[in-house]
Amino acid sequence: FLRQNVARLHESELGDLLEAIQPEQRIALINLLGEDFDLTALTEVDEGIRLQIVEQLSNDTIAAAIGDLDSDDAVYILEDLDQVDRDEILSKLSFTERVRLSRALDYPESSAGRRMQTEFVAVPPFWTIGQTIDYLRDEENLPESFSQIFVIDPTFKLLGAVDLDKVLRTPRLGKIEAIMRETNHPIPAEMDQEEAAQLFEQYDLLSAAVVDENGRLVGILTIDDVVDVIQEEAEEDLMRLGGVGDEELSDSVRATTRSRVPWLGVNLLTAFLAASVIGLFDATIEKIVALAVLMPIVAGMGGNAASQTMTVTVRALATRDIDIHNAWRIIRREAGVGLINGMLFGVLIGVVAGVWFDNINLGGIIAVAMLINMMAAAIAGILIPLLLDRFGADPAVASTVFVTTVTDVCGFFSFLGLATWWFAIS
Amino acid sequence: FLRQNVARLHESELGDLLEAIQPEQRIALINLLGEDFDLTALTEVDEGIRLQIVEQLSNDTIAAAIGDLDSDDAVYILEDLDQVDRDEILSKLSFTERVRLSRALDYPESSAGRRMQTEFVAVPPFWTIGQTIDYLRDEENLPESFSQIFVIDPTFKLLGAVDLDKVLRTPRLGKIEAIMRETNHPIPAEMDQEEAAQLFEQYDLLSAAVVDENGRLVGILTIDDVVDVIQEEAEEDLMRLGGVGDEELSDSVRATTRSRVPWLGVNLLTAFLAASVIGLFDATIEKIVALAVLMPIVAGMGGNAASQTMTVTVRALATRDIDIHNAWRIIRREAGVGLINGMLFGVLIGVVAGVWFDNINLGGIIAVAMLINMMAAAIAGILIPLLLDRFGADPAVASTVFVTTVTDVCGFFSFLGLATWWFAIS
Ligand SMILES: [Mg+2]
Ligand SMILES: [Mg+2]
Ligand SMILES: [Mg+2]
Ligand SMILES: [Mg+2]
Ligand SMILES: [Mg+2]
Ligand SMILES: [Mg+2]
Ligand SMILES: [Mg+2]
Ligand SMILES: [Mg+2]
Ligand SMILES: [Mg+2]
Ligand SMILES: [Mg+2]
Ligand SMILES: [Mg+2]
Ligand SMILES: [Mg+2]
Ligand SMILES: [Mg+2]
Repeated sequence: FLRQNVARLHESELGDLLEAIQPEQRIALINLLGEDFDLTALTEVDEGIRLQIVEQLSNDTIAAAIGDLDSDDAVYILEDLDQVDRDEILSKLSFTERVRLSRALDYPESSAGRRMQTEFVAVPPFWTIGQTIDYLRDEENLPESFSQIFVIDPTFKLLGAVDLDKVLRTPRLGKIEAIMRETNHPIPAEMDQEEAAQLFEQYDLLSAAVVDENGRLVGILTIDDVVDVIQEEAEEDLMRLGGVGDEELSDSVRATTRSRVPWLGVNLLTAFLAASVIGLFDATIEKIVALAVLMPIVAGMGGNAASQTMTVTVRALATRDIDIHNAWRIIRREAGVGLINGMLFGVLIGVVAGVWFDNINLGGIIAVAMLINMMAAAIAGILIPLLLDRFGADPAVASTVFVTTVTDVCGFFSFLGLATWWFAIS
Repeated sequence: FLRQNVARLHESELGDLLEAIQPEQRIALINLLGEDFDLTALTEVDEGIRLQIVEQLSNDTIAAAIGDLDSDDAVYILEDLDQVDRDEILSKLSFTERVRLSRALDYPESSAGRRMQTEFVAVPPFWTIGQTIDYLRDEENLPESFSQIFVIDPTFKLLGAVDLDKVLRTPRLGKIEAIMRETNHPIPAEMDQEEAAQLFEQYDLLSAAVVDENGRLVGILTIDDVVDVIQEEAEEDLMRLGGVGDEELSDSVRATTRSRVPWLGVNLLTAFLAASVIGLFDATIEKIVALAVLMPIVAGMGGNAASQTMTVTVRALATRDIDIHNAWRIIRREAGVGLINGMLFGVLIGVVAGVWFDNINLGGIIAVAMLINMMAAAIAGILIPLLLDRFGADPAVASTVFVTTVTDVCGFFSFLGLATWWFAIS
């Protein structure tokens, strides 16, 4: 009974089910399903769970089942295995299967070649619509579903693509070449998946040809997998800005701690740096304790302003909305915003602090320090991500650390430094 | 010459071009293009730029051009206009056009009904494949492109859907009802676009029927527009966690400042709250200045740990990966991570601080304060987003403020409080 109901689930529902049950039950469920278990469900679960399941299944079982998958799903599961298991599974497959999967696995991680499926429909340009339809009706060996037909020459060079709706609206005698689109934005197999996803988004593609360095069709990328890429990449940026590694919700306490400690460690170093800046002014603080009360405000407001600018910059870099042409305009804009916010909040905080401690000098000092730190926040918030990106680093991963270091150090230094200088001479 | 080249651009390229040039040139370019200007390009530019352009175009021009658009693109442009302009433009359209667009505009903002297009292909279930193909070949009035055919009864009730590849692979005599999928995940028009996007993602849909409360087909959602929704929603969460409003890269200094000031203002209030906690202990700080040097470390590390937990929680809420069944497990996990990190970094900081200020008591106090604040960070980082979500607020928008307030206040209070108590009695 259970078996029947579970077997009827969509692969993603089965994936959710596998995630929800206890680790011990997962293998039991898969064994219960036996032949009915669709390995595709494994592409829908967290990586940690996938590895756990795959390790418990014998290589024979995997090899027997993986031939039924689309090549992209097979690659998605195989790429996370260790070399030994992967080779053993590949060796158990038929020659064509093995070549197909190895070719995709040879492309770099996160490239279009890794995400492509090698099942596609391709016809020569001189076929008529009628011939094409007859071929589709008779041929047994077609992908399970497809949304485009690709047009190739005898050497598999890509000539164009035809959407299925065009095929359906054209009389039987029309030629394929007459209705094909020539610029189908072919995607080089080496291209990063993130870049490929941007092409899909910009040109509203449903599928796109993946070509090798000679322009030969080696596979196709489909929008459903691109949607997963878009989600993953957006998630990656969010997690990196939040200082979280590659962790997943299903991770254990240990795995989670391991993912978070490095970033907390880096932050600890910068926190000591900021603390030592305060240490420079201990004599001043001893005389005017109000400085210790107010200094976190200067640093904190700077940190918040910087994280606003940084968020916008990191996002714009991810969507390629920022480039050499408009970078300068945006830097000036952020500096302008920093200046206005610095004056606005400087005056506000200055008045409140002046009244609170009944000390107009203190109010003036915090106002100026605030202005300085807000400007520093704006400049650091935009320049640090831009420079990281320029030098090939992921701006999302390191920006937060650098930027808050700048605003902490600059906030403490300007506020305490100004106070030391002012009260020493007045 | 310019006109010819620009007219050949893809709508999204034209949109990028409009964004890149000076504001004054935008209208000039559109006037130059005249009839060749495809209004669809306006769906590809930032909202600020779209409004600027649309305001400068006469309502007559817009009315004349908007009839050529897919209804979803037309609605996308019209929904941002003020009521008067919108009504005037609608009144200039033909009756069918007007009804079509008004119906979509009547659905709530960000609902599936707003994003749907009303152009679709629908056939009765008893048609044969041959009949369907002949209809597609002869009918002039079809959508520009489509990837599915919907199956309806005479009252427009949705019965199912057929993918085009199935139509192409089935002999002419086969019946539509024999190859149609009955569960095509119909989307209620009132459903939020984010929820609809999740259905697309989960079931790998290319298009989906949008139905009214009686199950009648009123339009379709297509994956290219869903991809835009996914991007928008991911962007929204990132921006909100970063404390940035609805701003766009093309916004002016003034608009940008206006979008950021509110959040900085809220943060200022919480900064004063944290400062007043420090103020409680000014006598203690006056005696032991080292406390002022070290206290930002306790607060800052807590803030970072909290933002890690919060990021993971907000993301999991957005993808609906967290729910009543696993919330408790994840709360316990986060508490566990907080405990381990608290002990780890507590000892580390305790030793460094003890050596730095040559004071073993101070080292012990900061270690305990660190542990307390890391635990508070973990609990606040998960409970605050969960509670916000539970009470219908967007966890991304307010979590950062609440969470950092907790870690600041708790960090300063535990560290300074412990120090006051310990050094007063020892
Ligand atoms: Mg899932
Ligand atoms: Mg993988
Ligand atoms: Mg990447
Ligand atoms: Mg698009
Ligand atoms: Mg696939
Ligand atoms: Mg899939
Ligand atoms: Mg990235
Ligand atoms: Mg754009
Ligand atoms: Mg809009
Ligand atoms: Mg999917
Ligand atoms: Mg559309
Ligand atoms: Mg579009
Ligand atoms: Mg949201």
